[in-house]
Amino acid sequence: MPTILGQNQYGKAENRVVKITRDGDTHHIKDLNVSVALSGDLEEVHLSGSNANCLPTDTTKNTCFAFAKEYGIESAEQYGIHLARHFVDSQPSIHRARIRIEEYAWERIAGSDANSKFIGADEVKHSFVRKGQETRLAQITYDGEKFEILSGLKDLTVMNSTNSEFWGYIKDKYTTLQEDYDRILATSLSTWWRHNWTSDEQRMPSWERSYDQVKKHILNAFVETYSLSLQQTLYQMGSRVINNRSEIDEIRFSAPNKHHFRQDLSPFGLDNEAKDGAVYYAADRPYGLIEATILRDGVDARIPVDMTNL
Amino acid sequence: MPTILGQNQYGKAENRVVKITRDGDTHHIKDLNVSVALSGDLEEVHLSGSNANCLPTDTTKNTCFAFAKEYGIESAEQYGIHLARHFVDSQPSIHRARIRIEEYAWERIAGSDANSKFIGADEVKHSFVRKGQETRLAQITYDGEKFEILSGLKDLTVMNSTNSEFWGYIKDKYTTLQEDYDRILATSLSTWWRHNWTSDEQRMPSWERSYDQVKKHILNAFVETYSLSLQQTLYQMGSRVINNRSEIDEIRFSAPNKHHFRQDLSPFGLDNEAKDGAVYYAADRPYGLIEATILRDGVDARIPVDMTNL
Amino acid sequence: MPTILGQNQYGKAENRVVKITRDGDTHHIKDLNVSVALSGDLEEVHLSGSNANCLPTDTTKNTCFAFAKEYGIESAEQYGIHLARHFVDSQPSIHRARIRIEEYAWERIAGSDANSKFIGADEVKHSFVRKGQETRLAQITYDGEKFEILSGLKDLTVMNSTNSEFWGYIKDKYTTLQEDYDRILATSLSTWWRHNWTSDEQRMPSWERSYDQVKKHILNAFVETYSLSLQQTLYQMGSRVINNRSEIDEIRFSAPNKHHFRQDLSPFGLDNEAKDGAVYYAADRPYGLIEATILRDGVDARIPVDMTNL
Amino acid sequence: MPTILGQNQYGKAENRVVKITRDGDTHHIKDLNVSVALSGDLEEVHLSGSNANCLPTDTTKNTCFAFAKEYGIESAEQYGIHLARHFVDSQPSIHRARIRIEEYAWERIAGSDANSKFIGADEVKHSFVRKGQETRLAQITYDGEKFEILSGLKDLTVMNSTNSEFWGYIKDKYTTLQEDYDRILATSLSTWWRHNWTSDEQRMPSWERSYDQVKKHILNAFVETYSLSLQQTLYQMGSRVINNRSEIDEIRFSAPNKHHFRQDLSPFGLDNEAKDGAVYYAADRPYGLIEATILRDGVDARIPVDMTNL
Repeated sequence: MPTILGQNQYGKAENRVVKITRDGDTHHIKDLNVSVALSGDLEEVHLSGSNANCLPTDTTKNTCFAFAKEYGIESAEQYGIHLARHFVDSQPSIHRARIRIEEYAWERIAGSDANSKFIGADEVKHSFVRKGQETRLAQITYDGEKFEILSGLKDLTVMNSTNSEFWGYIKDKYTTLQEDYDRILATSLSTWWRHNWTSDEQRMPSWERSYDQVKKHILNAFVETYSLSLQQTLYQMGSRVINNRSEIDEIRFSAPNKHHFRQDLSPFGLDNEAKDGAVYYAADRPYGLIEATILRDGVDARIPVDMTNL
Repeated sequence: MPTILGQNQYGKAENRVVKITRDGDTHHIKDLNVSVALSGDLEEVHLSGSNANCLPTDTTKNTCFAFAKEYGIESAEQYGIHLARHFVDSQPSIHRARIRIEEYAWERIAGSDANSKFIGADEVKHSFVRKGQETRLAQITYDGEKFEILSGLKDLTVMNSTNSEFWGYIKDKYTTLQEDYDRILATSLSTWWRHNWTSDEQRMPSWERSYDQVKKHILNAFVETYSLSLQQTLYQMGSRVINNRSEIDEIRFSAPNKHHFRQDLSPFGLDNEAKDGAVYYAADRPYGLIEATILRDGVDARIPVDMTNL
Repeated sequence: MPTILGQNQYGKAENRVVKITRDGDTHHIKDLNVSVALSGDLEEVHLSGSNANCLPTDTTKNTCFAFAKEYGIESAEQYGIHLARHFVDSQPSIHRARIRIEEYAWERIAGSDANSKFIGADEVKHSFVRKGQETRLAQITYDGEKFEILSGLKDLTVMNSTNSEFWGYIKDKYTTLQEDYDRILATSLSTWWRHNWTSDEQRMPSWERSYDQVKKHILNAFVETYSLSLQQTLYQMGSRVINNRSEIDEIRFSAPNKHHFRQDLSPFGLDNEAKDGAVYYAADRPYGLIEATILRDGVDARIPVDMTNL
Repeated sequence: MPTILGQNQYGKAENRVVKITRDGDTHHIKDLNVSVALSGDLEEVHLSGSNANCLPTDTTKNTCFAFAKEYGIESAEQYGIHLARHFVDSQPSIHRARIRIEEYAWERIAGSDANSKFIGADEVKHSFVRKGQETRLAQITYDGEKFEILSGLKDLTVMNSTNSEFWGYIKDKYTTLQEDYDRILATSLSTWWRHNWTSDEQRMPSWERSYDQVKKHILNAFVETYSLSLQQTLYQMGSRVINNRSEIDEIRFSAPNKHHFRQDLSPFGLDNEAKDGAVYYAADRPYGLIEATILRDGVDARIPVDMTNL
């Protein structure tokens, strides 16, 4: 037969698992979107349609919900480790499991008027508002021997309204751009980073604390970098993460340059200089797209090039 | 001719106007999406294609940007009042202007490490992260005599993880729903409210403070209402706003009931009771959709039925 | 009490009902997205949370699916008439029902190779591809006495690559637009039209044929109008529909002017004139937005202004 | 320094290039969304912010528009080859260019009434409606020596309303799915395929004809496969393409199983068997996601695993 089957995987995508934990009257939420992808001895499913080696996607869905109850959801990473290990270790035909998770943050609704009377409870601790900022990401892969744990985030939109310049670039026949010594730098960050934890023989990181620290270093680098290019800003973000977080070996960014162009108001007799506070037009498309991996020296890059654009 | 022209309007939609104000080193952002709709003596534009009475949509766009510079953007409402008045008062053929505005909130990026050295400035106050929660709304309409000012918000997603019940409803041939005495109540609020300010002869409200207070009352009502129906919760929200804010006469809500169904885990030998902290499936479609107007007694309703779904 | 309840409605939105009809081996699809909104004696649901008059949204969902089986789906309009009549006539507390429907078109996959061998059937007539063009719309409202039937469509994107001009407009202080004697005219049509059928005492239109004819007249008007303004093109569309279709009394359009700007290539020594075939930049935002109602002389306008933007 | 720069690329994304070609009165459209990604000697852009080796993304945008005029757009692939070659061959610091293109199809608006009079032209051939079905894709990569040409499509939504079964799968503790001997099989295909053309020394395929033939083989396989699993259907699609198109060595699919569940109508005393024509609920999430690569025997797989999900 002249054709062969290459890489293949299957599973249930976008299981919307919400877990409420009650600690007395105080409730906690974990709100996840969980996607399962399994690989293994699945040639016959493709060639003859025999499903003898196929764990149905519906069963992978059921498992996601059942495990949320059986094990709770301490963190997306910990929950994904349970799931990935289960699929590979319990099914002889499944050799590799990849769990991808999006996590949506909620925060408690801030206290109401001091003198208000609550109905039905002296103190209510079960009211939340969706935070709406970045979506947190995790990907857990297990091949029966080792884990690969990626964490990440997307849709974290940041802006510096000054301290960004762009000049000294190549000029060719198609150049019309003017150099700019005081521009807005805005981007919507998408990033994944890779932990060097791969098995229970190592001490497992605190996934929640690690996430908070990585986000803090990324934001700090954004605030503190006087930027001559968005690439420079990304590199500062990445190197701070690698230098400060020993549990992380690699980080990749995809950062659209969300252009804010100073509107030309001279036809109306108006100045519009950055230094005076200016009016900008926020453009949709096209946009610059800057992507880069930053690595700990000596390690191999493993985060796929396109992954930060999913 | 057996056909006639009815209501018509035109203008430039979705002008993305961003205004940076510099107060020394401290910058402030207003980030708006501005849509203009004009009506008037425009029969000939439709019948013969004569544009003699037509102010081009491109000009309305230019005006949005120029006014952001000339007048600043104190609030979306104040800025929209400037624009609406200008179009009607400056153009004899334009008799009515409606300005619709979406506003996106940004917050300052929280302080970085205490001991960090900023590059290029001792203290940097120009770094922002998009808040990502609700989108604020405003609609300013002017007919040459009076203004109508609507304010609103959309995509404010809230959840009570308990203190919601649903029972005692009609049962008919097509009923399968089980009564529920402890369910999740979650919704993504879309709401518009109408101010009773209509002209400069009245004292103008503080639009920023009014917005903050309305949002606070809505959230408080959500927290404090032990809910027997989503309708009851909406009515509590609306009546609190009307009762507490004398500048507002009418409010309309559109609230999808974002269903969180308790997953049936009994096939796997697992209990999943709300009281123990449960696992829920967050459903996309279909969803209940609850819509209601709440009015100050004696005033006429003016907010269109479909407006909260735009 | 100083606040009162105004217009309110509730129901299950976006029920994704798919009906397959088998005519021997030949299958037919109806693929609908059905939203129910009910009004009536629902004060207590809002005031006290008593649901005694409330038919649950879950029951309205069940009814949508059951009716698709019991009555089939001859057309979205006919199916909606069954549903609306049922809710009002069977429930004393429900006085008005509004059914909104989106319909997605499928077409048969064109014949495969003449000499191919089908597996399991001599001739297969059950394979479809989603058409992907406009979404068809219907809204059926019933108050116990009369029906109001609106039909419509959205996302029908059309382009004339010439025969469009724009000039002779008002110039003011904020004008920068150049007149254009050969521009692209492109829009994504959203439109609703109102039938004058209101009860069984009248002969019911053929909803399917009526839709096809309205769409044909709209497209013909687009092809045949040498356009001096998008308003003129819309009026031509509307008046053709009213003049040719006696079952329709009113039509409303919302038409974004999807700008295609000729790119300035002069910095690179290239002409880019429309007459030679030009290169255009398709802009996202902002866009002109043109909205108009066209009526049969003597009838009242009833289609809400915002409805074409939903 | 303990951190190093890994894979990086940059360019202008989503340039919306529309080219009208006039052949007398008959116009033709090419409607593309073009994204440029460049790699090379770009370390200093990241490390010091020196842009001396950086061709600005704005210039890459200008080049996309200028080349559409200078060379026309015979096909997305041919146009991308011009662009990729230009960036690498003209800039010493650029060593690799990747051009990704989405193409939107338009078709002529079908003839209007035979007896209609056109305004301004005897016969008008410049009116189009956007087809709205699949989006065509192309990716052209050039490293100064060889090209890699991928073509593809996304959002081609197909349905077989019978001739699909699913049974004989693994049962474990978390299984609840019932076997099904007559189900709907529906998917929205996303696929990329790789041509074996890599340089001008080979005869270049006809890109337009190749695309049409690949799409035909995919649809034929969908129609003609009596399916025991979606995997089997994908493999049939892929092997037909490889076996029939000698210019193609590899193809990868990502296919969501767009579930259509037969609604349980038994509580209402209604049968709902597939054989009688049934009513289905079209579910949004979760969905099965099936992904597979099919290769010509002996060639290496090069299409990235995640690429079909972009």
